[in-house]
Amino acid sequence: MQLPDPRLLDELRAAAGADAVLSREEELFVYECDALTHHTGRPAAVVLPHSSDEVVAIVRACARAGVPFVARGAGTGLSGGAVALGGGVVIECARMNRVLEIDPVDRVAVVQPGVVNADLSKAAAADGLFFAPDPSSQQACTVGGNVAENSGGPHTLKYGSTTGHVLALELVLADGERLRLGSRAGGDPGYDLVGAVVGSEGTLGVVTEATVRLTPLPEAVETLLAVFPDVVSACRAVAAVIRSGLVPAALEIVDQRTIAAVEASVYAAGLPLDAGAVLIAELDGAAVALARQVERVRALASSSGASRVEVARDAAERQRFWRARKGAFGAMGRMAPDLYVHDAVVPRSKLPEVLEEICAIGDRYGLKLSNVFHAGDGNLHPNISFDRRDADEMKRVLAAGAEILALCVRAGGVISGEHGIGTEKQDFMPLLFTPDDLDAMRRLRAAFDPGRRCNPGKVFPTTRFCVESNPKARGYERVSFDA
Amino acid sequence: MQLPDPRLLDELRAAAGADAVLSREEELFVYECDALTHHTGRPAAVVLPHSSDEVVAIVRACARAGVPFVARGAGTGLSGGAVALGGGVVIECARMNRVLEIDPVDRVAVVQPGVVNADLSKAAAADGLFFAPDPSSQQACTVGGNVAENSGGPHTLKYGSTTGHVLALELVLADGERLRLGSRAGGDPGYDLVGAVVGSEGTLGVVTEATVRLTPLPEAVETLLAVFPDVVSACRAVAAVIRSGLVPAALEIVDQRTIAAVEASVYAAGLPLDAGAVLIAELDGAAVALARQVERVRALASSSGASRVEVARDAAERQRFWRARKGAFGAMGRMAPDLYVHDAVVPRSKLPEVLEEICAIGDRYGLKLSNVFHAGDGNLHPNISFDRRDADEMKRVLAAGAEILALCVRAGGVISGEHGIGTEKQDFMPLLFTPDDLDAMRRLRAAFDPGRRCNPGKVFPTTRFCVESNPKARGYERVSFDA
Repeated sequence: MQLPDPRLLDELRAAAGADAVLSREEELFVYECDALTHHTGRPAAVVLPHSSDEVVAIVRACARAGVPFVARGAGTGLSGGAVALGGGVVIECARMNRVLEIDPVDRVAVVQPGVVNADLSKAAAADGLFFAPDPSSQQACTVGGNVAENSGGPHTLKYGSTTGHVLALELVLADGERLRLGSRAGGDPGYDLVGAVVGSEGTLGVVTEATVRLTPLPEAVETLLAVFPDVVSACRAVAAVIRSGLVPAALEIVDQRTIAAVEASVYAAGLPLDAGAVLIAELDGAAVALARQVERVRALASSSGASRVEVARDAAERQRFWRARKGAFGAMGRMAPDLYVHDAVVPRSKLPEVLEEICAIGDRYGLKLSNVFHAGDGNLHPNISFDRRDADEMKRVLAAGAEILALCVRAGGVISGEHGIGTEKQDFMPLLFTPDDLDAMRRLRAAFDPGRRCNPGKVFPTTRFCVESNPKARGYERVSFDA
Repeated sequence: MQLPDPRLLDELRAAAGADAVLSREEELFVYECDALTHHTGRPAAVVLPHSSDEVVAIVRACARAGVPFVARGAGTGLSGGAVALGGGVVIECARMNRVLEIDPVDRVAVVQPGVVNADLSKAAAADGLFFAPDPSSQQACTVGGNVAENSGGPHTLKYGSTTGHVLALELVLADGERLRLGSRAGGDPGYDLVGAVVGSEGTLGVVTEATVRLTPLPEAVETLLAVFPDVVSACRAVAAVIRSGLVPAALEIVDQRTIAAVEASVYAAGLPLDAGAVLIAELDGAAVALARQVERVRALASSSGASRVEVARDAAERQRFWRARKGAFGAMGRMAPDLYVHDAVVPRSKLPEVLEEICAIGDRYGLKLSNVFHAGDGNLHPNISFDRRDADEMKRVLAAGAEILALCVRAGGVISGEHGIGTEKQDFMPLLFTPDDLDAMRRLRAAFDPGRRCNPGKVFPTTRFCVESNPKARGYERVSFDA
């Protein structure tokens, strides 16, 4: 491992305080990966700033030393985005965790990036508001991480992903320049730089403050659980519900293998083990309007083949239904030591055929493949349970994953819905983007970070194939390419 | 006037057909301005392509000739954005007006850029869907123009502006390179280039196809009209409604001077001439839920000072209420020969104090200033009626406008809500943005259009002040600056 430059460590201590810098091997170990545990990188140092000014000082120290850096929140990301490559510095924002303001008339909150997603909604609840993006990791993940990854969640179907909820950002660039992008008033004259930064996976700068939209808490919530003979008929029910003009808060499907894992675990929700799939449908809004919507969803589920439809009678039962969904990843620990959570999107009209093909791919490679997914958004999570100590199985896992991504792209979809590209999928980007498309992204990156010191080695393909095969590339010598 | 290069005209005819190129002075006259009639520029030629391929050929011909170009839709823009400066070519997209696909399960439409906004909603109505962005010009304006300007409208309060409704774009760059940005499936790995293009006012390339989100038509609509003694109490009602957790489809305020103009015109809606302001509140959603919401809005309006609240009994009465709003600009033709429709945004919590100050500015300059605005969004439209032949009045109009924009920025707002910057407000950009912010935008522009041939001379300040006063500017020689 590369030893950190001692002068850089001194400058980082000067920037954020001696107790804010970690550099001993045992301290750094925990920062080697995020929730994508098989992609690792040891940072040179970890700094925990308390303020935006300290971030500026840290970034300037890195600039002087010519060292890259990566901002990190809770490390719950699933695509390797928060890992420092090339001996970089991790800027861990956990101490920047203050909710600076909540305004119920403007319906905005101003927060530091380290505020935990669920804590923001808790803080806003007194005003009858919440922060709508709800990734499954919301008890731990931070708003800064949500901004970096443009996080979604089960309720993205109705409320949209993070990008629709960010009004303004303070962004520190790699040279320490501080930009204030967007406006709490909304309306955004000039280019939408806020939109460009949301979902940029930390490659444009460090977000040190976010002004986000808050949403009124729905007056009432109704949750249904429909049992289907197979996943394809559950998908047909999703299409029928959307086609009917309803706008559910969530439409989630859990398949048979996942049900088996959940029912054998501490998350057991009393689901029928012979069900081919269950659909969880959540409706929210004015209490008086929901009864009829519930009956419409029930009827559409039944006519699509559901053998049983239950409506949660109370909050406890609602939680039980959601346990089948939210406990899925935990429960899969029973199936094998390792779990690869894939993330891809297809147009929802294509769900039935794509899911059948995904299951066929899993079978062809002899893998334990299960599906839990945001069906309403067409956001698939094919999960492969495996043992990475089995080299042959590991190879088959990766080959199946590549086939699944290619399948989703052929169906008009994309290679990530909410987990980002990071180091996990960078080499699949050419599946989706032409060399010209990727060059446009590189040029946008260069507009913010020409020296590529913000989270380098992510998002863009590591292979040079797509650049070299692009006859136009020589026209762009003014920007350098990401390796 | 600069004569067009005859070879360029030949190439344009070869690209799009002889009948698709206008170059005689009398043909070009109508393209001298958009709806901001006092900012003009005569194009060298106007071309009316039928297809994306023709746009590529046109743009390549312009590239060979080193001539700039600007894409134009219906020319309803209010900030001079669709005017060709420097003898450029207008690419008029009116013939690219086909709805290519409507998919009710994916809830998307694929359209050419020249499709008229209202026509798209008409085409989607058979599937119970509509295109939510609803600028007041929606009977004429095009989807391509909506994308360029990130258009809003009365119903932006609930449904958001255009940027939330665009999933994918085909974009032709200045060198003829064709990019496909985004995905109909949603989810957008890599940088959000769609978000960067929406609202970029035609300065990054020509949009030749858009895949947009369609929204289910609400089951029911209720419209209220509340009469207030003054505009400040109407603003307080808006704050109270938002604070209550309701999400109305629209909250619009029309002030006393506007009422007087409307009632004297063909748009007369039977409004009380002694009212200080009226608030139009529209609610939509499940029919059964609306009755109680109507009563809550009525109660909140009354407790904020409304002397009378009416609820439209049928569609005819709803139209009558909206006539007071939508006929306002037409009716103002009675007050003076010219009308300056301003556009700015303030946080809605600041509406009462900002409006009082705006009226005081109008009085101080001795101007006829009236207000019609999207109150729920804090999107103000202070309208100044004047006679441009009166040089002194013209000077006062411009001075008052500058004071109003500065006031809105001081209140935490921005200088445009939905009309864009164009040529109208480019020199006010430094009010809102630091030199660093503007440089970040220039670098983004250079990432798409390094030669600045897409709609040059717009958005960025024409004065060099902000660049020259920026000590960091010398670090950016790799991009050139907009004049």
